[in-house]
This record gives sequence, structure tokens and C-alpha cells, in this order.
Amino acid sequence: MHLFYQPDSNLYELDEEEARHSSKVLRLNSGDIIYVTNGKGTLQKCVLNIQGKKAGYEVLESQIIERRPFSVHLAIAPTRKAERNEWMVEKMTEIGVERIDFMLTEHTNADTINRVVNLTRLNRIAAAAMKQSQQHYLPVITIGNKYEAFVKGVTGSEKLIAYVPDHNKVEHVFSKVKKGSGTTLLIGPEGDFSEKEVSLALDHGFSTVSLGPTRLRTETAAVAGCHAINLAQNIL
Amino acid sequence: MHLFYQPDSNLYELDEEEARHSSKVLRLNSGDIIYVTNGKGTLQKCVLNIQGKKAGYEVLESQIIERRPFSVHLAIAPTRKAERNEWMVEKMTEIGVERIDFMLTEHTNADTINRVVNLTRLNRIAAAAMKQSQQHYLPVITIGNKYEAFVKGVTGSEKLIAYVPDHNKVEHVFSKVKKGSGTTLLIGPEGDFSEKEVSLALDHGFSTVSLGPTRLRTETAAVAGCHAINLAQNIL
Repeated sequence: MHLFYQPDSNLYELDEEEARHSSKVLRLNSGDIIYVTNGKGTLQKCVLNIQGKKAGYEVLESQIIERRPFSVHLAIAPTRKAERNEWMVEKMTEIGVERIDFMLTEHTNADTINRVVNLTRLNRIAAAAMKQSQQHYLPVITIGNKYEAFVKGVTGSEKLIAYVPDHNKVEHVFSKVKKGSGTTLLIGPEGDFSEKEVSLALDHGFSTVSLGPTRLRTETAAVAGCHAINLAQNIL
Repeated sequence: MHLFYQPDSNLYELDEEEARHSSKVLRLNSGDIIYVTNGKGTLQKCVLNIQGKKAGYEVLESQIIERRPFSVHLAIAPTRKAERNEWMVEKMTEIGVERIDFMLTEHTNADTINRVVNLTRLNRIAAAAMKQSQQHYLPVITIGNKYEAFVKGVTGSEKLIAYVPDHNKVEHVFSKVKKGSGTTLLIGPEGDFSEKEVSLALDHGFSTVSLGPTRLRTETAAVAGCHAINLAQNIL
């Protein structure tokens, strides 16, 4: 099944990169069947119509794919390396995530955030990962929200913060997930959250959780946390 | 806690790269306390003794860190991109893994395997990840074992193969883990395992398992599988 991404449901044409991919890499021709999603749950079965460099399509069938009965939301202090932030977005999208926020925390360098997280690139990476993993919803990605405003704004979901003052006293995120509900997990920067940030989260109904016995880098913590929440929702 | 890696317990000197790191990056001086592991469970508390570019140390205390009461073993068909294989090793080491085998399967290109997996580089990446995550055992990494020989050789552990002919009929790896025992999980190449390879595994006592509802790339599957096994062992 060849799945493509076209956010504009009224365009009936693949963008340049996907058009090239369809003919040059997948070697598809006019008349071949492709599937197109708008990243918002619409899946269309289409007939390809290649003309030169353009790849148009005619819709045969259209269906709405329902959202999952739960949602996974990661709010992360970006790492200093762009590739690690991009990797995070790719892997969490493959595994399953509805929303990713790259926040500004006390220990985040606000001056460099635009260098380490580029929204255009991240959305392109998420779209590729969505297609690769045969999903039909593109995660919402935001950049540069201030931690404090963010923490105060989260509503209607299980609120968790990955912070372990003492291993033995904190439950694993897996054990805190409520079946069928939304989960928001905060992941701190390399220098971790400040005491002030942790108490602000606790004051706003967040619970501290562990991500396991080993010390994980920020991007590993985000992917492990995202995976643990998905596991709990799919298995329990 | 500054943890360093010196595989030779009789050398009492950091290698060139770690010596430079200790003085130039961590700005440590003679007399400072460091910790050194040999990657085989020995943890030594030492006094640093910097002389020019050399960083020697004197051992104050030495202890043996016990192995975990279970073991995690991933056998993977390497992806075509070296960086994705290296990323896998880094992430699985952070999360916790005893052994990683990059196998030759029917759909693996044997001619390029030395280009996509370089044992020296992988061991260096694993050592860095071991230190980063404050662990004291370096995973054993092998390259180029033939799938058939490998599958026939695995003994004394829960044997699983990530293969889903039909989602609904296969349990998730998380549910198949036996508390406190070793687990071996086979991860296929981009073209997946061949029918022949799957039946060979089944004939040798492997059970097919799922890694979740979404289709994961090889490297994501390996890390998700490794994480699911660790979760099952640490939580159940």
C-alpha cells in the first residue's frame, strides 16, 4: 500500500517531492492505485495520473479513520543537538503521539532554540514517519512555549512529570497511565528541571514519574516515555 | 559522579580521549575523585593524577556491581544506514541490553554489512552510552552471524521473533516476557524475514510477537522491543 500525504484535501495533486518519489523511486505510473491521507484522519484511495513532473490523482473512495481512544502528549525541553530533537519526533511519531511541545525551561537556552528545533523540518519528518508507520494523523508540534504558561494550560488529561528525586519513591510512568484517557508527560532538559519548575508542576496537579532504573538522555527519555504510555494503553 | 571506562583493570590510566575529556571538558585536576568501570561489573573509586596529557589514577575502593536478575538480547538484521544502527546501539545500551547481534538474513545485503556496522565504532558508542546512563556492564556486540546458525544456537532464554502475519493473532512482546529470565528477540530487516526464516525460528522454539499496532522501522522496532522487555522485567 503506497501511502502519500497531502494536507490540502482539495488539491488532488502530490507535492513535488512525493511526485518525484512516486515515479522515480516507487516507479508508479498513471493508472496505479495510491492512498492519500491529509494527516487529519482522511484516507483516500486514488488513481494516479502522472503528467511530466506532476502527479495528480483522482479519488475513488474516501474514508475517515477514527482517532485512537486515548491520546499521548509529550512536552519536552529540546536537547542542544537538532538531530536528536528530529530523531525524537521521528520515533515518537512512528510509535504513536498526538502532540509534541518543545518548551522553554529554566535550563533551556532560549537563544538557540530556533537552531535546534525547526518547525518546518520537524513537520516534514513527522509526515514521513506518519506515512512510514501507516498512520493517518499528523502529530501537532509546537515550539517555544514557556514552561510556566504550558504547565498552567494543560487540562483534561493525566498529568505526569519525569522527575526522580529518589528512585524508590516514584512510580514508573507505565503504572500511572489511565486506560482510555489522555496522558501528558513532561521531559526535562539535560540540566533537569529546576526545583521551582517541579513544584510548579506539582501545584498544578502533575505527579512525578520514573522512566526506569537507568539514567536516560533527554531524547531517549521522551521516546521511552512515549512508548511506555502507548504500551500501557494498548496492553492493559 | 564522574564515571570513566577502562577495560583493562591493571592499567590505572584513562585512554587518550577520556583523559582529554577529564581535564578539558570536566576540568578535573589531580586529587579529584573519579569512578572507573571496566564494563564487566567492576566499579572503582579513584583519585585522579593528571600529568600533562596523561590521566592516571589510584584506586581507593573497588566493588563488584551485580548483573541484573534478567538479561535482554536483541538479534537484528542491520539497516542500510550506519547511523541508524549506531543509534540503535546507543539507545538500547542506555535503556538496558546485555547482548546485540547484527545478523545476516536472507534480505540483508552481506556485501555492505561492514559499511553499515563497524564493530569498533559500535563498541565506542556503547561504552559512551554505558557511562552516560551510569551502568557498569558493556553489552556484547557481534556482527555477521548467519541467521540460521544464530537461531539454532540460542539456548536458555525466552525466544521471541518480531513477526506479525496477522495483528490480532500475535501477542505483544511485553506479555511474553518471563520475569527474571533471559529474553532473546529477533528483529527482521526492512524487507522483513522470509517465510523460510520464520518457520526455522518456530521450529527452534521461537514464538512470534508483535511490537504494537503501528508499523515500525527496523531500528525503532529494536529499541521499542528492548524497552518493552526491560519494562516487563522492571514493572511486573
